[in-house]
Amino acid sequence: MAREEETKVKLLGLWVSPFVRRVEWALKLKGVSYDYIEEDILNKSPLLLELNPVHKTVPVMVHDGKVICESFVLLEYIDETWKHHPLLPHDPYDRAIARFWACFVEEKILENAWIAMCSEGEEKEKATKIAIDAVERIEELLKGKQFFGGDDIGYLDLAVGWVSHWLPVWDEVGSTKILDPLRFPSTTSWATNFLGHPLIRDNLPPKDKMLDYFHQKKGRIMASRARV
Amino acid sequence: MAREEETKVKLLGLWVSPFVRRVEWALKLKGVSYDYIEEDILNKSPLLLELNPVHKTVPVMVHDGKVICESFVLLEYIDETWKHHPLLPHDPYDRAIARFWACFVEEKILENAWIAMCSEGEEKEKATKIAIDAVERIEELLKGKQFFGGDDIGYLDLAVGWVSHWLPVWDEVGSTKILDPLRFPSTTSWATNFLGHPLIRDNLPPKDKMLDYFHQKKGRIMASRARV
Repeated sequence: MAREEETKVKLLGLWVSPFVRRVEWALKLKGVSYDYIEEDILNKSPLLLELNPVHKTVPVMVHDGKVICESFVLLEYIDETWKHHPLLPHDPYDRAIARFWACFVEEKILENAWIAMCSEGEEKEKATKIAIDAVERIEELLKGKQFFGGDDIGYLDLAVGWVSHWLPVWDEVGSTKILDPLRFPSTTSWATNFLGHPLIRDNLPPKDKMLDYFHQKKGRIMASRARV
Repeated sequence: MAREEETKVKLLGLWVSPFVRRVEWALKLKGVSYDYIEEDILNKSPLLLELNPVHKTVPVMVHDGKVICESFVLLEYIDETWKHHPLLPHDPYDRAIARFWACFVEEKILENAWIAMCSEGEEKEKATKIAIDAVERIEELLKGKQFFGGDDIGYLDLAVGWVSHWLPVWDEVGSTKILDPLRFPSTTSWATNFLGHPLIRDNLPPKDKMLDYFHQKKGRIMASRARV
């Protein structure tokens, strides 16, 4: 057995990052205790720059002296290292499907919802449409289901989890309606189930603080674009 | 045992796609036989649209009646389904590192080398710089190594394999010098090892045909941009 010191898990994060939260949710679901270190992303610490010189972003996890970055890579690492309560399904095809949709939501919904929030005019319209069309696909997947994989939270729920809590905030800040409850009842119902899970419920950033943060963030992005 | 008909593998591809080739290389390394169906990407077949309605792109693999898309998802599926000659390393940390660099090369080198080929002026310069800085990182990784994982071809070699054969063509078509042999001797030597592997050597698109294809492709992209 390695000494406790060595096997400890450290996580460098940012309270408002959906990428960090999905890693925290995975650790909590696995029952892995960790030391959380909050990063100031506008004033990155020497530790962050040393541990993640390539991307200089959070999340960064240190486990047993080994450094791992990027949230999807971390979800796989966590699932392979602590095998109880598996996140990914067992069957290779089901795993492929979970990975496929995780990437799809990241690329189509997350990227475009972000652009939609931080832009105007044609760019905003285009991004909003791509994001809504993508939620349409997710709505189909979730019909009649509590979670993506059935009755319990798994990999895809954690990967897509930000849709339940971040997307409504981005919709409000950007005056968009990507996650429309009337249009997407199954996705909305999944979001309610997800947010109601005890481990998720107790591990979410407060909405009012998020609204402030993203209003300011959007303001800075729009101002810097106006200067170009 | 399922009937032969059911367990057959079908792969929809495009001869010049690096995403398709990496899947073919994985199947060949595993010794999995498959029927290859060439797609006309300018005139997509009803089969492709039916099998991959989300992205409408190749590669698409059908195995035992199940449809799997996206090349990185496919590499994992292939590795999990045919377990002999593992592509990913065994250790969770080594697996995380392989996945991290695969995504890094895709995002930083592939995307930017493509933009650099198909653009001019400031956009070209910026993309070229990002790609070269990223090759610098890969150069560090490959110092003193035959392949990424050591003595044999693995997941990361297949994921990054396009650098050996496509990048020199893109450099020629785009008049860039991203893969500079003098600046990057370890990457160049890895490329030689990779291209010399019997399974890779016999599964590459011909360079003259690629040059024609990408010259034309670039021409069409530049013309459509000029019209906007």
